[in-house]
Amino acid sequence: VTASSTASFTMDHERAGRYTVRIVPEALNRPELDAVLDGRRSLVVVSPTVERLYAPALDALAARNGPRMRRIVCVSGEPAKGLAAVERICDAALAAGMDRHGVFVAVGGGVCSDLVTMAASLVRRGVRCVRIPTTLVAQIDAAIGAKGAVNFAGRKSSLGCFHPPALVLADPVLLRTLPLPEIRAGLAEIIKIALVSDAPLFELLERVVPELLATRFQEPADDATTVMAASIRRMLEALDGNLFEDRSYRRTVDAGHTFSPKLEAAARFTIRHGEAVAVDLALSATLAARLGFLATGTSERIRRLIATAGLPITSDDLTAELCRDALAEAVRHRGGRLNLPLFDAVGHARFVDTSQVVDQVLELALEDLRLPLAEDQRVGVS
Amino acid sequence: VTASSTASFTMDHERAGRYTVRIVPEALNRPELDAVLDGRRSLVVVSPTVERLYAPALDALAARNGPRMRRIVCVSGEPAKGLAAVERICDAALAAGMDRHGVFVAVGGGVCSDLVTMAASLVRRGVRCVRIPTTLVAQIDAAIGAKGAVNFAGRKSSLGCFHPPALVLADPVLLRTLPLPEIRAGLAEIIKIALVSDAPLFELLERVVPELLATRFQEPADDATTVMAASIRRMLEALDGNLFEDRSYRRTVDAGHTFSPKLEAAARFTIRHGEAVAVDLALSATLAARLGFLATGTSERIRRLIATAGLPITSDDLTAELCRDALAEAVRHRGGRLNLPLFDAVGHARFVDTSQVVDQVLELALEDLRLPLAEDQRVGVS
Repeated sequence: VTASSTASFTMDHERAGRYTVRIVPEALNRPELDAVLDGRRSLVVVSPTVERLYAPALDALAARNGPRMRRIVCVSGEPAKGLAAVERICDAALAAGMDRHGVFVAVGGGVCSDLVTMAASLVRRGVRCVRIPTTLVAQIDAAIGAKGAVNFAGRKSSLGCFHPPALVLADPVLLRTLPLPEIRAGLAEIIKIALVSDAPLFELLERVVPELLATRFQEPADDATTVMAASIRRMLEALDGNLFEDRSYRRTVDAGHTFSPKLEAAARFTIRHGEAVAVDLALSATLAARLGFLATGTSERIRRLIATAGLPITSDDLTAELCRDALAEAVRHRGGRLNLPLFDAVGHARFVDTSQVVDQVLELALEDLRLPLAEDQRVGVS
Repeated sequence: VTASSTASFTMDHERAGRYTVRIVPEALNRPELDAVLDGRRSLVVVSPTVERLYAPALDALAARNGPRMRRIVCVSGEPAKGLAAVERICDAALAAGMDRHGVFVAVGGGVCSDLVTMAASLVRRGVRCVRIPTTLVAQIDAAIGAKGAVNFAGRKSSLGCFHPPALVLADPVLLRTLPLPEIRAGLAEIIKIALVSDAPLFELLERVVPELLATRFQEPADDATTVMAASIRRMLEALDGNLFEDRSYRRTVDAGHTFSPKLEAAARFTIRHGEAVAVDLALSATLAARLGFLATGTSERIRRLIATAGLPITSDDLTAELCRDALAEAVRHRGGRLNLPLFDAVGHARFVDTSQVVDQVLELALEDLRLPLAEDQRVGVS
């Protein structure tokens, strides 16, 4: 990853070539976008919400590009993220005469990004895809990596692809219309990336999260951009060298994603992904403290930031049994028991052997989650 | 490409890693196959013909691997090569508990290879795929590259992927049950690869094609292996460095595939792909001769070998208009008009500017195709 400014990052990958992620205003009206389109046949795929809220900007984009550009609205919502939705997009692309030089433009959240990435990987064995993510999670996480996926045969994201984008334009202005739970979900992933890799980001979040949440990342504008840029940079750094997940099972970005999948399943998806990640991070903090390598005060500080972001730090569904199941699953999926990502200080990841998480430690860590947090206490800063 | 013996070739690719293509007897009972399987969950996908003819060898493979291996029969025939068939394979793989370490084994012709390659690229964002091709075309062409595809929205191979195999085992013994038209289709691709890259292979074919055809590549066994090994080696060399077709539009392996797609479409697929390739190669020869860079005697020699292989050298559907359409399409799909692959001697490709193929040249070349071939004449060997 190289940063060409405070808000522009370029990923160089031996297999994937190069792509740029930029934080820009007016993402739908940018020379970088026009440079990729450049007279080629294109299909703009938007979520229903984007079509409703941003039709004028989309129409202006269409007017600039003429009949070579077409636009369709894709489905929204995780349950609709299936192969049928991908087929509809492919069908529209081929009906529009898309050839191997064609370009997809995905404007929407994670579902839109996943579906369009899948379609772009399949049409003519792979065409370019520009992503203009419109949710905070997509802007700092889901839409800046190489992955696309659909749910299949009742299994979440069980079919998918690695198909890196040609360009990602993250526009903070688009967040002003986002529902608050979506802002919170993004904050959960931002807190995660700060915990494993960026102490100054964590400290900035402690200061500005209430205002960022209240203003949906519009104010303070400089801090909002700093938070987004740091999150994007750290995420790209974490992906770099392992973009196709074929080099290492030690992925710091898996932090917060050990217990959360089981928690989501146990709650039958009534808990949001971001909320489950928040609970997972809180448990990871108390676990790290009970394992003896994270200061108790730091663990409390982490839980306090999560709570300040309006996110949960525990759940009735979070039982010891669920946690043991999740750890067993992690062993299977992360190439062995040595690859549990935790943190031994704010901003620093450590990989732990799951067999260290004995029943007594787990149960104490779960109890810690139920303790009330002191109101305004900052002790044991690591 | 490196050859570790006369019958084993390894492709090393910066993006794809490494894979080996080997010519072996008893492909279903090989230590190389067992080494990839190695206790992992696997799904063997076979064509209906393979299930019918080779059930004992498949059952022995299953017995060696126990309950971690499952087997299903896929559809056969180009019209059935669609996403629904891929979904069935993915469904069976997930139902069998395939994780990211799983292995697909495709045993069948080009359709089976295409479908399983697609499934293997999608399940868990890509798992390994061993190919055991059972047709001559698949053994020397379709199954040794990186591509998979399905027909979609009425368009041939309009969705697809690049997903290189983990291992390819080509077993000439499997060809003994192949229908003769399938042997001829393979010979068309072998003649193509000889024309663009291997004069000694062409000369060997001139000597042994009648017996290879009559014995379905069983006799002379040494010559059959030599022909297959040379074809595989030259094909891998042609793919090398451009396996994902992202580096160059100048692909020698596109020879024989300029006019043939339009011819197949015009004949509404009553002409086989291999036959259309044969006609394309014959026209390419007369065109090269009329353009003045291939000896007329060599052009005749090429047509004679094609005819000896029992393949057509012309077709009533091959009109000048069809050829002009095909050239226009080639300009669109091969990055401009400079990339028409022809040959200026047996064994040597040359890329020609399509604008050189003026109407008069094209019509003369088409007329040449209708001329009778002298019975046993070898003149103008290049």
